[in-house]
Amino acid sequence: MAVRVAVAGASGYAGGEVLRLLLAHPGVRIGALTANSNAGQRLGAVQPHLLPLAGRVLEATTADVLAGHDVVFLALPHGQSAAVAAELGEGTLVVDCGADFRLRDAGEWERFYGSAHAGTWPYGLPELPGGREALKGVRRIAVPGCYPTAVSLALAPAYGAGLAEPEAVVVAASGTSGAGKAAKPHLLGSEVMGSMSPYGVGGGHRHTPEMIQNLSAAAGERVTVSFTPTLAPMSRGILATCSAKARPGVTAEGLRSAYEKAYADEPFVHLLPEGQWPATAAVYGSNAALLQVALDEAAGRIVVVSAIDNLTKGTAGGAVQSMNIALGLPEELGLAVTGVAP
Amino acid sequence: MAVRVAVAGASGYAGGEVLRLLLAHPGVRIGALTANSNAGQRLGAVQPHLLPLAGRVLEATTADVLAGHDVVFLALPHGQSAAVAAELGEGTLVVDCGADFRLRDAGEWERFYGSAHAGTWPYGLPELPGGREALKGVRRIAVPGCYPTAVSLALAPAYGAGLAEPEAVVVAASGTSGAGKAAKPHLLGSEVMGSMSPYGVGGGHRHTPEMIQNLSAAAGERVTVSFTPTLAPMSRGILATCSAKARPGVTAEGLRSAYEKAYADEPFVHLLPEGQWPATAAVYGSNAALLQVALDEAAGRIVVVSAIDNLTKGTAGGAVQSMNIALGLPEELGLAVTGVAP
Amino acid sequence: MAVRVAVAGASGYAGGEVLRLLLAHPGVRIGALTANSNAGQRLGAVQPHLLPLAGRVLEATTADVLAGHDVVFLALPHGQSAAVAAELGEGTLVVDCGADFRLRDAGEWERFYGSAHAGTWPYGLPELPGGREALKGVRRIAVPGCYPTAVSLALAPAYGAGLAEPEAVVVAASGTSGAGKAAKPHLLGSEVMGSMSPYGVGGGHRHTPEMIQNLSAAAGERVTVSFTPTLAPMSRGILATCSAKARPGVTAEGLRSAYEKAYADEPFVHLLPEGQWPATAAVYGSNAALLQVALDEAAGRIVVVSAIDNLTKGTAGGAVQSMNIALGLPEELGLAVTGVAP
Amino acid sequence: MAVRVAVAGASGYAGGEVLRLLLAHPGVRIGALTANSNAGQRLGAVQPHLLPLAGRVLEATTADVLAGHDVVFLALPHGQSAAVAAELGEGTLVVDCGADFRLRDAGEWERFYGSAHAGTWPYGLPELPGGREALKGVRRIAVPGCYPTAVSLALAPAYGAGLAEPEAVVVAASGTSGAGKAAKPHLLGSEVMGSMSPYGVGGGHRHTPEMIQNLSAAAGERVTVSFTPTLAPMSRGILATCSAKARPGVTAEGLRSAYEKAYADEPFVHLLPEGQWPATAAVYGSNAALLQVALDEAAGRIVVVSAIDNLTKGTAGGAVQSMNIALGLPEELGLAVTGVAP
Repeated sequence: MAVRVAVAGASGYAGGEVLRLLLAHPGVRIGALTANSNAGQRLGAVQPHLLPLAGRVLEATTADVLAGHDVVFLALPHGQSAAVAAELGEGTLVVDCGADFRLRDAGEWERFYGSAHAGTWPYGLPELPGGREALKGVRRIAVPGCYPTAVSLALAPAYGAGLAEPEAVVVAASGTSGAGKAAKPHLLGSEVMGSMSPYGVGGGHRHTPEMIQNLSAAAGERVTVSFTPTLAPMSRGILATCSAKARPGVTAEGLRSAYEKAYADEPFVHLLPEGQWPATAAVYGSNAALLQVALDEAAGRIVVVSAIDNLTKGTAGGAVQSMNIALGLPEELGLAVTGVAP
Repeated sequence: MAVRVAVAGASGYAGGEVLRLLLAHPGVRIGALTANSNAGQRLGAVQPHLLPLAGRVLEATTADVLAGHDVVFLALPHGQSAAVAAELGEGTLVVDCGADFRLRDAGEWERFYGSAHAGTWPYGLPELPGGREALKGVRRIAVPGCYPTAVSLALAPAYGAGLAEPEAVVVAASGTSGAGKAAKPHLLGSEVMGSMSPYGVGGGHRHTPEMIQNLSAAAGERVTVSFTPTLAPMSRGILATCSAKARPGVTAEGLRSAYEKAYADEPFVHLLPEGQWPATAAVYGSNAALLQVALDEAAGRIVVVSAIDNLTKGTAGGAVQSMNIALGLPEELGLAVTGVAP
Repeated sequence: MAVRVAVAGASGYAGGEVLRLLLAHPGVRIGALTANSNAGQRLGAVQPHLLPLAGRVLEATTADVLAGHDVVFLALPHGQSAAVAAELGEGTLVVDCGADFRLRDAGEWERFYGSAHAGTWPYGLPELPGGREALKGVRRIAVPGCYPTAVSLALAPAYGAGLAEPEAVVVAASGTSGAGKAAKPHLLGSEVMGSMSPYGVGGGHRHTPEMIQNLSAAAGERVTVSFTPTLAPMSRGILATCSAKARPGVTAEGLRSAYEKAYADEPFVHLLPEGQWPATAAVYGSNAALLQVALDEAAGRIVVVSAIDNLTKGTAGGAVQSMNIALGLPEELGLAVTGVAP
Repeated sequence: MAVRVAVAGASGYAGGEVLRLLLAHPGVRIGALTANSNAGQRLGAVQPHLLPLAGRVLEATTADVLAGHDVVFLALPHGQSAAVAAELGEGTLVVDCGADFRLRDAGEWERFYGSAHAGTWPYGLPELPGGREALKGVRRIAVPGCYPTAVSLALAPAYGAGLAEPEAVVVAASGTSGAGKAAKPHLLGSEVMGSMSPYGVGGGHRHTPEMIQNLSAAAGERVTVSFTPTLAPMSRGILATCSAKARPGVTAEGLRSAYEKAYADEPFVHLLPEGQWPATAAVYGSNAALLQVALDEAAGRIVVVSAIDNLTKGTAGGAVQSMNIALGLPEELGLAVTGVAP
């Protein structure tokens, strides 16, 4: 019997990607679709790529509309999820694609978001140590941020194996869909095409504490992260270049072996063969994460590069994967690892 | 029982897209993969997005390798299909993604391709009048060209309903994957990004006689086509702007109604609601064709714009759709109409 | 002695391009820079590429601020130029980059813009027959629209020489800067990258009557224009594919010769050598227009393709060129025909 | 009297950019243009944006052709410059845009390039300490690599002021023109559009020893550099994100002050106002380098981001700037700091 699913925030990029994946998921039936300013519109007018749902009409995001579903995906601006979730029964699986319930440290939340902390939900990154177990049977899931997904997958094995010093340096390039669908001048096509630019430099990006949380857990000690996000002239994709000083005695073979071990049985995380580096195009629309590792002996650093689709594995794909686990469905159900390229 | 499928030319863009779709097709099992200069390589090295097949090794394109499959897709440079097909038994379904068997007029073939005409196979555009019937049970299929697909779907209903004068004007923009994967300087990213340029202007493009063939059949009289293809700075997609003088008495309502009638029951061809125009992003990776029509009363012309993904509906998706029909499978099996956007 | 120039609307794309060109113009001194919502900001905050003016502060657009300059460029939303111009003395050269004063026919203005017609100013396309003479010494200039510039340069010679039937078909692709800097969802980078889409199909685009005005003047009879603009995934550039039925007896040689004659002495309009087709990249940031012509004998049509930079020759470059003529300066002063490529 | 300049390698991207800049340089006259495989072609066929030189014919690269010029720019594949330079008189200013003469350490050259070291020429980065003086009157100039230009400008002040530990981490994104015009599959538009990918990870990129050379000179001690270059979907531009551990006691004010002091009088290097970060679009086609600095106190690192146009300040603009110094011309002659944006 199909699981009945509602999506709140169906007119945005995250909500649209959740729907794109659900349309290919054999175990679900798509129920209510809600929006804020776009309520009342046909979905086809705002998400023309979701052709099978083109005639659906967006409803307002209210508890009444969302009630009566087995699963509710929330793809709302941060700060809005708690109020909606509070009105949904405990038996409903609520999957929050936003930031509200990702952090364990209320102080960090307040420092980076400037509002009261709503709480902490089970964290939807099954590939982290213990991550899969922690999602089984739950009814609340905090979907990780797109950058933390790329960075945690890239560096957790090195920290988990004690290979790296606890000071990570991350520079990541993201497609513009990561910035959402709200029309802002610096996100205009005219501005972003042909241009690369950084933002939130110097530690200010809100995904930083989430990376620190994940990497510190893997390392068993406090890890600092110097994180510089950059905006790349593409719609989708994150390429994260992550490095840390190698601990004494680390070898290229040992490094590679740690990653092989960490991801040998993972359906979505792939260590590429030696000599091949990940390109975001290869994971376009797919739930795969591609990794490659190197030991830069002259600089004494471990370098790991990961590529994901920020909307798929980085958001909606990770969300569906976690939903599958929570509901006891096969984890890969409805999730492709085939990218749309070229 | 799954149909066993081989793909010849699996390292190129058309072959790669056939494989991407077959990986999502529940009725097939992927057999031999062949290439020319890339034979011997892992597929993952040349098509890194096809992760489930990454470990497969490309074989040389020989009859021996291709034998023993129920279906063989040919994605070869034009002129090479006939020799390969001749060695495959008559019971094998051969689907040629190349140009060799598309034209009925040997003289036109020779004029545009400069070589002897190999013959004519059943034409894989089910949405043309009679097109679907002509594919049932066949064992040879000529997949249409990407531009002729976009243009024929756009104009055939107007000609079929007698609404347009037999002189069509088409300007189409294509993503660069339409030009293939052979490395040529004018196809370098540095050259195509930020630039639009025409090619084959003045009637020289090889897809022109194929358009004329299809539109003339729909019109029941000879239709001329002034066709200008342009190269757009994107990897995928065709946007075809097609127009013709309206016959006397044509109204906007009559025009729209002809298209509604023509495509009411088609699973892949969608006339958009009035006021909405097709964007290629909405069909990225999907087998849908989106259409919109207008009657420009001041200029006295019918204008139809169609958007397809040149690699999907324009090549590999059309090929799989036709395969489904030929084999008696459900026509939509394995083919999404959900695009990957944004 | 340098001419003192003010720019109203300096924070937008047209105003920014006027400034970019004026910075390289040896005969001017840049005076007041004004804006609306951006007044009070440093120019460097909104136009970071105009480094030599980064410290300038944008003032409000008032007659007081604009007074006392020899030349005032208006780069304002349509409908706002008349009021500003009325307050500037008759001795001031006012160059309006907007649409307000382009059309001669008040009825056409009202039909397409829905407001009262402000009047008609000398038209800033020197390459049209008589166009240069009409600009000498004037103190008001209406800068042509970007599409009409590309299309009029492409087709005027054919109509002037009586080679084409008076029914033109134009499909043009434009970079997104043509749509301006106002943040609208459909202009987000995430939406436009990787996508082509039409707009204003069926005769509705406001540049249509301006094209008709220019081509009809060249032809000496009423010319209709079926115009379809499309949005291309690039910041700058227009590629206009223009065609019309050839009149009886037209030959390829005769066609080419008409264009050679028309543009032999033009510094900015270049007919490419046979076999070479224009790419917008070649005119990136330059004031050149590149043309190529073909006679499609099978379809009986003349096809002309033109490439310009919509912001340079299509707006600000054309404006500076016309300013030069009006002021009696060398027409090419400060205007490059070297594009920034690749 | 104009300086007579030849360009060897005029059909490539570096050579084309040298010509683009020379066309706007009031002190030079462009003489011989040479190429290898393109010799015999019109320049307009291979560099259509260089309209004023379109009719020039490319000659073979021989000493005879290059003789008799005051300045010869070499834009050749690495390893070819020494032989050409040897045949040019000592009075000729030879400006090598290639790598052959950049490194002082022959061992490093051999390790990274696998051939015999040709020698070391005066290094064309005037903004390094002592860099300007070292170029006055010279007749041989080694133009820096594009990445080393971006990285050295970004980090030399921090090292020069003793603010940073000698272990730099650099992740840089480059437009595809940095990879040259040779047609390679991974550089096809279809491959690079919509994709980010790294290359030369782990210390293997040939620009690494040049960065180490420059930063070590600035620091007065050996600096290691962990360098990861990435290919971005744009034609031009480098965005370099550079960081190093801050030495004890470093403050944000002290850091900023070091950069203000270092570049206060530099015409081409601009520290942006606080809060504004560099975008490569702002330096498109310009010789400016834009910088911003931050102290990430939580991570204990100095972060400096620089943006240049890889072909302008990163290659041809730096070359012309150094030529100006060597010849005693005003350093800024012919070099704009106005970018072409949007």
